[in-house]
Amino acid sequence: MTVLIANALILTIDQAMTAHENGWIHIEGGVIAALGSGKPPDLPGAEVIDAGGDLIMPGMVNPHCHMAMTLFRGLGEDVDDRLFRYILPIERKFVTPEMVAVGSRLAALEMILGGVTSVADMYYFEAEVGHVIDQSGMRGVVGQTLADFDPPDHKSFDEGFARTNELVGEFAGHPRVTPSIAPHAPYSTGPAVLKRVAKWSEAHPGVPVQMHLAEMATELDWCARNFGLRPVGFADTTGILKPGLVAAHCRYLDRSEIELLAERGVGVAHNARSNGKAGRGIAPVTALRKAGVPVGIATDGPMSGNTLDLISQFAPVSMFQKTLGGSRRPMPAAEVIRMATIEGARVLGLDEKIGTLEVGKQADLIRIDLSAPRLHPIYDIYSALVFAATPSDVRDVMVSGKWLMRDRQVLTLDRKKVVRDALQVAESFRIEIRAIDAAR
Amino acid sequence: MTVLIANALILTIDQAMTAHENGWIHIEGGVIAALGSGKPPDLPGAEVIDAGGDLIMPGMVNPHCHMAMTLFRGLGEDVDDRLFRYILPIERKFVTPEMVAVGSRLAALEMILGGVTSVADMYYFEAEVGHVIDQSGMRGVVGQTLADFDPPDHKSFDEGFARTNELVGEFAGHPRVTPSIAPHAPYSTGPAVLKRVAKWSEAHPGVPVQMHLAEMATELDWCARNFGLRPVGFADTTGILKPGLVAAHCRYLDRSEIELLAERGVGVAHNARSNGKAGRGIAPVTALRKAGVPVGIATDGPMSGNTLDLISQFAPVSMFQKTLGGSRRPMPAAEVIRMATIEGARVLGLDEKIGTLEVGKQADLIRIDLSAPRLHPIYDIYSALVFAATPSDVRDVMVSGKWLMRDRQVLTLDRKKVVRDALQVAESFRIEIRAIDAAR
Repeated sequence: MTVLIANALILTIDQAMTAHENGWIHIEGGVIAALGSGKPPDLPGAEVIDAGGDLIMPGMVNPHCHMAMTLFRGLGEDVDDRLFRYILPIERKFVTPEMVAVGSRLAALEMILGGVTSVADMYYFEAEVGHVIDQSGMRGVVGQTLADFDPPDHKSFDEGFARTNELVGEFAGHPRVTPSIAPHAPYSTGPAVLKRVAKWSEAHPGVPVQMHLAEMATELDWCARNFGLRPVGFADTTGILKPGLVAAHCRYLDRSEIELLAERGVGVAHNARSNGKAGRGIAPVTALRKAGVPVGIATDGPMSGNTLDLISQFAPVSMFQKTLGGSRRPMPAAEVIRMATIEGARVLGLDEKIGTLEVGKQADLIRIDLSAPRLHPIYDIYSALVFAATPSDVRDVMVSGKWLMRDRQVLTLDRKKVVRDALQVAESFRIEIRAIDAAR
Repeated sequence: MTVLIANALILTIDQAMTAHENGWIHIEGGVIAALGSGKPPDLPGAEVIDAGGDLIMPGMVNPHCHMAMTLFRGLGEDVDDRLFRYILPIERKFVTPEMVAVGSRLAALEMILGGVTSVADMYYFEAEVGHVIDQSGMRGVVGQTLADFDPPDHKSFDEGFARTNELVGEFAGHPRVTPSIAPHAPYSTGPAVLKRVAKWSEAHPGVPVQMHLAEMATELDWCARNFGLRPVGFADTTGILKPGLVAAHCRYLDRSEIELLAERGVGVAHNARSNGKAGRGIAPVTALRKAGVPVGIATDGPMSGNTLDLISQFAPVSMFQKTLGGSRRPMPAAEVIRMATIEGARVLGLDEKIGTLEVGKQADLIRIDLSAPRLHPIYDIYSALVFAATPSDVRDVMVSGKWLMRDRQVLTLDRKKVVRDALQVAESFRIEIRAIDAAR
């Protein structure tokens, strides 16, 4: 299958940040065959698309999500103990493979509408998430969670590892879905399990590890109380800090911990809106990146950050770093776009395959409509994207050369049914929340 | 003219935050005649609109803007000294009545598309802004700026006051455009001029005063060096702190200054994205509101905050206060919506007229399409608006019973021409910027 997109402003996000005005891109068998500016090549039999001056850029990479939690979106807002008051009790009661599929479908729908083409997920019954990602046409890393708080899909860590092995068995070799292991966090797994994960991981090269790390003040307390260490130092004693680890949050880091993460080759998923809504202060993203740690822009679960597109994270990512640095200079717009594409891909170990528009890479790309008055004038296209675009500006989405959305119509999911199914599950949550609140 | 909107989720934002599910609202001669839920009244000859379950809420109020600066949007991003490097030189050279009209039209277009129905502006040749607001159908407070940095429309303060008197003469009694006087800031006017403004203001009751206050670290230095005071204390010595003053920013306040602003009856325009992008830290909005100071959500000029809708300010407003408070609890979503409507109206002295949907108030309202998957499920409608809506979700806009937008089509401005005119002016700025950069 040959596709030619012409008459586009192409942002390649390659090392030199090459942009092609009046650009074209030639896709062959799902791979970028050529691209440039000026007169496009003559390709008989190609599907030719006139982009009408719209922007083409790499599909965005969301390196930390709990997709099924769309069903909890907006629940328990502004409540400090909502994890223990609402989330865990409802999860124990309601999380089934079917619920995970329903919630993950709503998440995939929203991400495609917002220009996200790759996602790293960690939740329960993760094979279901893999199926949803597969059907939606997206690319994803699906992580089986391991935790000690009586989670919905394993009664013991042995059972959790068995589930992980099954997941790896099912998705090994899948072109778009990568299986992963996801110890929930230091405090919910403990040293023995993290050591076991590190060892398991050595026996499974190419399987990413995902974990919440240095996210919460209570985690600092737990590590200090039990080991006299901070979270990163504690994690390092277990051998889990190594290339392939996607560390989510990393809010609480000191200078030596930043250097240690760089040295160990860890990637970080930064969750600006989730951290901001939790009142957790600002993660040291600028310092991490300066130390050489790749940092992607992530949404976290929709109960924490509400939306699953990256565009609505852009301004917060930049503003929080400028606030932390006390100046306009930190985190310029172009860097935000790098984080949302190639750097997120690097965090997931997918940077050879996706994250930029370069010859030989997979054709994971999005088209953005630049016609909204709020985007103009455009003195700097990256600034327009970061500070004035909205997820609704994304018009078309392609993964591996296949269209997932054209003209805002998602082609791989039944939008009405997906939303209807989600609202039905939400009704049962609503009843449960009333019961929880009444019992207090 | 009689309008009946039925089958809507109506958020009144009245004191009790009354919401009408399956609600209707009856508008007569531009005024809200009745509203409720259930079966709507039978109104022969009325224009009847079935809102199809969409949301109806008060139009939003933007209490601090420099509309014409849309033409500078995204210019000099990430540059700490951009005010002196770019803005002032370009303003001196290019700001004409025509440029102000062109830039303000783009701003009005964007604000209507984003659900803003009222705006307080301060800039130059402000009568032009008044004309644009009048033609666009919006409601506005237009403030003639007074400043000592050789601004484009007055060579002396005497000339500035003369311009202000003309502006007041032209718009006195206008149903939607309120003239205003706008001393730029303490450091750019000085004590004698602020005293003169305070006195002028006493002779012109009902004319709001707008001023940047306690915005910048350099302002703190200026006040300390010259008067041994902080900005609010200095301003108080001039008599300018009184009801009717719209104080923009108020980033640098201590406890006693917050109490003083409350005591003096000053209103505050909070610019979350503008301050965030400038790396200025977080304004004490929660403390101001607790002290009884009304605080509206403002966009600042588009060179500072980029967009002119309030929806893209919502999540930052809440997240920054939660970050400042170190908890999820500060600034719940419903409070953000109050700030964007009734509280902004109070800041501008318009709260008797607009800001809520109540019988007898002007019919300034917007319709929001709730169909986007990112908004669902909805456990809390205010949370959905604050953390997941985008300006593109606004579908219809009405001011004083007149439709300014239906189905995303702005009816009062020629969208294509407005954008084209703006891009033409931007071309001349582009050439000038190159010259400035080349000369460095």
